[in-house]
Amino acid sequence: MSRAFGAKKITLSGERDDDVLASVGKLVSNWGGSFGIGYEENWLEKIEEFKKKKGIVVHLTMYGEPVQKQITKIRKMKKNIMVVVGAGKVPTIVYQLSDFNIAVTNQPHSEVAALAIFLHEFFEGKELDKTFKGKLMIVPKKMGKCVVSSEK
Amino acid sequence: MSRAFGAKKITLSGERDDDVLASVGKLVSNWGGSFGIGYEENWLEKIEEFKKKKGIVVHLTMYGEPVQKQITKIRKMKKNIMVVVGAGKVPTIVYQLSDFNIAVTNQPHSEVAALAIFLHEFFEGKELDKTFKGKLMIVPKKMGKCVVSSEK
Repeated sequence: MSRAFGAKKITLSGERDDDVLASVGKLVSNWGGSFGIGYEENWLEKIEEFKKKKGIVVHLTMYGEPVQKQITKIRKMKKNIMVVVGAGKVPTIVYQLSDFNIAVTNQPHSEVAALAIFLHEFFEGKELDKTFKGKLMIVPKKMGKCVVSSEK
Repeated sequence: MSRAFGAKKITLSGERDDDVLASVGKLVSNWGGSFGIGYEENWLEKIEEFKKKKGIVVHLTMYGEPVQKQITKIRKMKKNIMVVVGAGKVPTIVYQLSDFNIAVTNQPHSEVAALAIFLHEFFEGKELDKTFKGKLMIVPKKMGKCVVSSEK
């Protein structure tokens, strides 16, 4: 989803799942784009490194400030952005290190949905028109399926 | 997520999972709103019934027409809407019965993200300002967590 919505790269942490890494790699090879996926055991170091390079860290949490009130400010900073999405209980240090703690509604729901809406708001919907050059491409249809393959 | 984003009701089909039904019920009881969740074995009948009542069926599929090109038309119809989201391979009949086959990008990604963006576009972002009266409420914070409980 991050790829389809305009993100450049995703870094996973926590328990390593090689199946996920492989399946995203395969998806990028089939569907195109320059999306990267990686694994990092030490997420704290990764966040600190990113901050040293003057990037902005945005942590998505239901406890944060409304996305609709902060997104223009974040967009206007014109900096590289790292979006942090935690599963389960997120350590306090993440709230402290983040430049923004942002809520996509203050209601419990899915991290995937929160990230999708954040990216959608950040790119002002333009990510929906993004095209990818891959081996496989879909031609949008009113009904049915049309997949074009560029492989011989 | 459907609840947080302004949907009124969700009906699950396929393999019945009572844990999901119970956990959404508990969430609604804690966090408020009039969201309903149900299970329906015969999804086809459910779709047909809804159509008979002049509702509009929108099927979310990566093969469909771009959401950004159709959403205004759908919104302007001012009808009740059933959004159909399939897991895995979706039977052809769903494409045929649906008034709209809609793609949130023609790229493979998450059904949850597709539904979130569809609702966000449909409600023009206003769903983010929706408030719920529940036992628990979050007060948005720049940092940290603030949950208010109305229970004594």
